[in-house]
Amino acid sequence: MSELSSIIEELIKFRNDRDWAQFHNPKDLALAISVEANELLELFLWKNPEEANSERVKEELADVFAFAFLLAEKYGFDVKEIVLDKIQKNAEKYPVDKAKGTAKKYNEL
Amino acid sequence: MSELSSIIEELIKFRNDRDWAQFHNPKDLALAISVEANELLELFLWKNPEEANSERVKEELADVFAFAFLLAEKYGFDVKEIVLDKIQKNAEKYPVDKAKGTAKKYNEL
Amino acid sequence: MSELSSIIEELIKFRNDRDWAQFHNPKDLALAISVEANELLELFLWKNPEEANSERVKEELADVFAFAFLLAEKYGFDVKEIVLDKIQKNAEKYPVDKAKGTAKKYNEL
Amino acid sequence: MSELSSIIEELIKFRNDRDWAQFHNPKDLALAISVEANELLELFLWKNPEEANSERVKEELADVFAFAFLLAEKYGFDVKEIVLDKIQKNAEKYPVDKAKGTAKKYNEL
Repeated sequence: MSELSSIIEELIKFRNDRDWAQFHNPKDLALAISVEANELLELFLWKNPEEANSERVKEELADVFAFAFLLAEKYGFDVKEIVLDKIQKNAEKYPVDKAKGTAKKYNEL
Repeated sequence: MSELSSIIEELIKFRNDRDWAQFHNPKDLALAISVEANELLELFLWKNPEEANSERVKEELADVFAFAFLLAEKYGFDVKEIVLDKIQKNAEKYPVDKAKGTAKKYNEL
Repeated sequence: MSELSSIIEELIKFRNDRDWAQFHNPKDLALAISVEANELLELFLWKNPEEANSERVKEELADVFAFAFLLAEKYGFDVKEIVLDKIQKNAEKYPVDKAKGTAKKYNEL
Repeated sequence: MSELSSIIEELIKFRNDRDWAQFHNPKDLALAISVEANELLELFLWKNPEEANSERVKEELADVFAFAFLLAEKYGFDVKEIVLDKIQKNAEKYPVDKAKGTAKKYNEL
């Protein structure tokens, strides 16, 4: 089994053991991703960019991944495929000759 | 090469081609995850849980994964390992006999 | 003194008593608004729209307001003025005859 | 009429003219606050703390306030009262002698 499939399988097993599929509709999963992303973000609040506690970053980032994998599974998305497709799209929005070395958004390039 | 390593390699190549490593400090990457998580969340706003446009969910979820992978890479985390470790921890916080069928937080069980 | 000015004065006093102005740059204040907005949002996670605990909604919403007022003060914005100006702008983006009864975004009307 | 009441009255009039009360349940309003908070936050992404475009900060912050006022109205909260009450609570969590000059969370003081 692939790496990604085995992670998702473990997450689904954890969920089903607790009978939580009933709560995991797409909207609440998206909401959970935002909530976890902000628990992660809070670790950086009032701090310099490198000053967050890396052990806690590890845990909160894992939670972001967990709900992101569950939402991908809900829609039947292949995570590798959707990320590589998005890189392709972004390569068109951010051509190297225009985007190199600047943090501007594509609509300001 | 593993699936996860090959995704991350593509993301790093995309970033380095544009000389963007200079912007990708951990704090701004965490901030980017929250911003992308909310572009995803907006697709569900004022809607029933199943009514979001799945093509757009695919793209916004891909963006969440992209920055989450880049932050993991920044800290040298193995994504599979941190997610499986977190499942382990959550299994202790949410024992099956107490958590089954309820959406309560662990501190309310 | 106006209602809004008196709220902001109390927030500034609380902040200055603790010598926290040094942490309150605009970026971290914006980050704090997102973090508090998600503590608020978490109260609705896995629940029906009306099921959040209203006492906790009150507290988390107060935190959102507190950092929003502090960011407004940082830029010298008059809260009443900026909200009324935005209503004016939104009235142009969402004309009554097109927007009535639909939750579509202005660019889909 | 008080300043706060007159802002909220304008927001309600804007909403009712478009027949949008049907969409404004508490959960979606909380979701909207997070979405708007992150449109605000995006203005600071990859930038130094003072580098956001202040005209755009003004507009996005106005949107945060708009949905925060609408959620307060939904629950019948008096904004001044809930913010002052929260300052009072935070004064107990962050006593001046312990919290002065440090950005630590109350549970780390």
